[in-house]
Amino acid sequence: MIKKQPIPKPYLDRVLCLLKELKKRSLSGILVSQPENRRYLSGFKPSDPQLNESSGFLIIGKGLAILGTDPRFEEEAQKQAKGYYPFIYRKGLEASWPEVGISLKTMKKWAFEADSLSFHTFLRFKKLIRFQGNSIPFLPTYQLIEEIRAQKDRSEIKTIRRSLFITEGVFQEVIKTLRPGKTEKEIAWQLKQLIHQKGGDGLAFDPIVASGPNAALPHAEPSDREIQKGEPVLFDFGSKWKGYCSDLSRTVFLGRPTDRFKEVYSLVRKAQVQAEKGIRAGLTTTAADALARSVIEKGGYGEYFKHSLGHGVGLATHELPSLSPSKADLLKSGMVVTVEPGIYLPGWGGVRLENMAVIQEKNAKVLNKDQSFYNF
Amino acid sequence: MIKKQPIPKPYLDRVLCLLKELKKRSLSGILVSQPENRRYLSGFKPSDPQLNESSGFLIIGKGLAILGTDPRFEEEAQKQAKGYYPFIYRKGLEASWPEVGISLKTMKKWAFEADSLSFHTFLRFKKLIRFQGNSIPFLPTYQLIEEIRAQKDRSEIKTIRRSLFITEGVFQEVIKTLRPGKTEKEIAWQLKQLIHQKGGDGLAFDPIVASGPNAALPHAEPSDREIQKGEPVLFDFGSKWKGYCSDLSRTVFLGRPTDRFKEVYSLVRKAQVQAEKGIRAGLTTTAADALARSVIEKGGYGEYFKHSLGHGVGLATHELPSLSPSKADLLKSGMVVTVEPGIYLPGWGGVRLENMAVIQEKNAKVLNKDQSFYNF
Repeated sequence: MIKKQPIPKPYLDRVLCLLKELKKRSLSGILVSQPENRRYLSGFKPSDPQLNESSGFLIIGKGLAILGTDPRFEEEAQKQAKGYYPFIYRKGLEASWPEVGISLKTMKKWAFEADSLSFHTFLRFKKLIRFQGNSIPFLPTYQLIEEIRAQKDRSEIKTIRRSLFITEGVFQEVIKTLRPGKTEKEIAWQLKQLIHQKGGDGLAFDPIVASGPNAALPHAEPSDREIQKGEPVLFDFGSKWKGYCSDLSRTVFLGRPTDRFKEVYSLVRKAQVQAEKGIRAGLTTTAADALARSVIEKGGYGEYFKHSLGHGVGLATHELPSLSPSKADLLKSGMVVTVEPGIYLPGWGGVRLENMAVIQEKNAKVLNKDQSFYNF
Repeated sequence: MIKKQPIPKPYLDRVLCLLKELKKRSLSGILVSQPENRRYLSGFKPSDPQLNESSGFLIIGKGLAILGTDPRFEEEAQKQAKGYYPFIYRKGLEASWPEVGISLKTMKKWAFEADSLSFHTFLRFKKLIRFQGNSIPFLPTYQLIEEIRAQKDRSEIKTIRRSLFITEGVFQEVIKTLRPGKTEKEIAWQLKQLIHQKGGDGLAFDPIVASGPNAALPHAEPSDREIQKGEPVLFDFGSKWKGYCSDLSRTVFLGRPTDRFKEVYSLVRKAQVQAEKGIRAGLTTTAADALARSVIEKGGYGEYFKHSLGHGVGLATHELPSLSPSKADLLKSGMVVTVEPGIYLPGWGGVRLENMAVIQEKNAKVLNKDQSFYNF
């Protein structure tokens, strides 16, 4: 029988919050397979090295906290996921299952994460659960823990801010050495090196360094193109620190800014400031998006703002909420979001400016210190 | 209606091979969601940035080759996946579906990849397929394309070898600068930098640099521990080049090797050589594993060889076949596998030596040039 150990803070609060959500849905427990959710609820850090290689899963129910993993991660399981019973499946998941099976008989209605469980793993667990009784339901949930994760506590916000400061420090050094003739790839590599030097754990995502016409592609990959005088260079990158991501976009012009650049840049910046001033708890995500979009539309560039205004950032680079024109959710205090309007003109280039902000009751607090914006 | 364009080689051969496998199973087409399979069959390079963020999927059937992706990847879809109809779902997958739906009416029995499709995406596609007719089956397949991928063609083997040479070059430089007092993390960072300098596209996986007792953990993460005289240092890392991975393990001893190290090292090397000499097409993967395992068992260290002998390497670091004691598959010519026996002694450290080899009809050809093994 599994002995209960206390789960330390902040994981305990998160688990209690999850249990409350499960209760609302009359679910007795949940299988957690999404890697960031797993870490958020337990402190277990290993990521999943390949899509088809899971480092483990949690089973959480009333009075029940199990971390299942294979022997490779035994040490991490014991050190990192305090309060969780380490179920090390030495003989493979199925053969080892009886070790925990008996403790799970209180779980009468199981949930799983439909967005992160592969169909195959779903079938495997469904079979294992049948071990408890043929009629036990195994039901999909959608973004249940992601919604809890969206609202950050103080310590998470501090960690994100530290990650962002590393990112901003890197940006400030990189623009000092920006010269025509450097390739986008060289600059991207410089970003990577500087993140390491400044103590970041690595990149939060593949960085974008896009010059001239490449800057017209919102998700350009750094190429061997040399940056040139007389064109914009768009940066979008972020570091990770203690598991938390940051996300920063800036656009600079090499040489003397043209009138077109000044016009586009000013409009994007105006849209960003407008959104930063207006977002707060209680506003819908579509209304947040509209704050910036309306400025760009009025400026005559509406059709060139091709993506959403922003997204949540935390253990993942892209998480809830989504500040987009298509689905209205409520902004809540503690959410950390990006505010990143952009204008992309095919053949010419683009401008994107991205800050991060934490949603508060009456306003939002921009987390960025960097104020290197042009003031045309 | 979708116009048919010729698919260029080598993708055409791969698609034809897949169609043959589908026919054997009476399946009229398949939805391909696994990122490496997608690239293997079409040339479409984007990876999936997050577990819940797909860059796209293929639909392949008789006379049918579609690449579905969102507008972010429109350019890549057209440039990279020649011969595939680019289905860009601008209004979201569901709303845009009618654009391709009519062309899919010949697909009477669909397959999908059970290991890479999330339960949620499975449901979404199942609904879309119902669009064609309520009773159209949507059936799971397991490792179908992975099995085709396991046997490499000449050009793939050349690419993997190039990736391995980059990795070996990095190792040779790193050991030149190995000094007591360097931390495992510093050395891991050096590996990363050198891969970049030598033209690699990046790391194939998170590198292992494990010294002293840390080397007893087969999957140790580089720590702040300083490497010391009188202990082993275990390296396991690899680069990527043009999408293909390499994987190399070496163990070196700082200072004068102890008798224990000499004994363990010689045994591991003997097991490796024995396996390299014995593997060939037609042998089972369990027999391959036993070639090395029997040497280590005879030497009295059987219980300390805690993992499988090896695995396939290609577009993914870990792919088919698995050279393990648990499941017997046949080795086939063209498979590229690692041969990596190891002995791990808790508290003391470990030794792992990993080469890569291509399976041939009558033997196997080791791809490594590095011959820096100790000869005790």
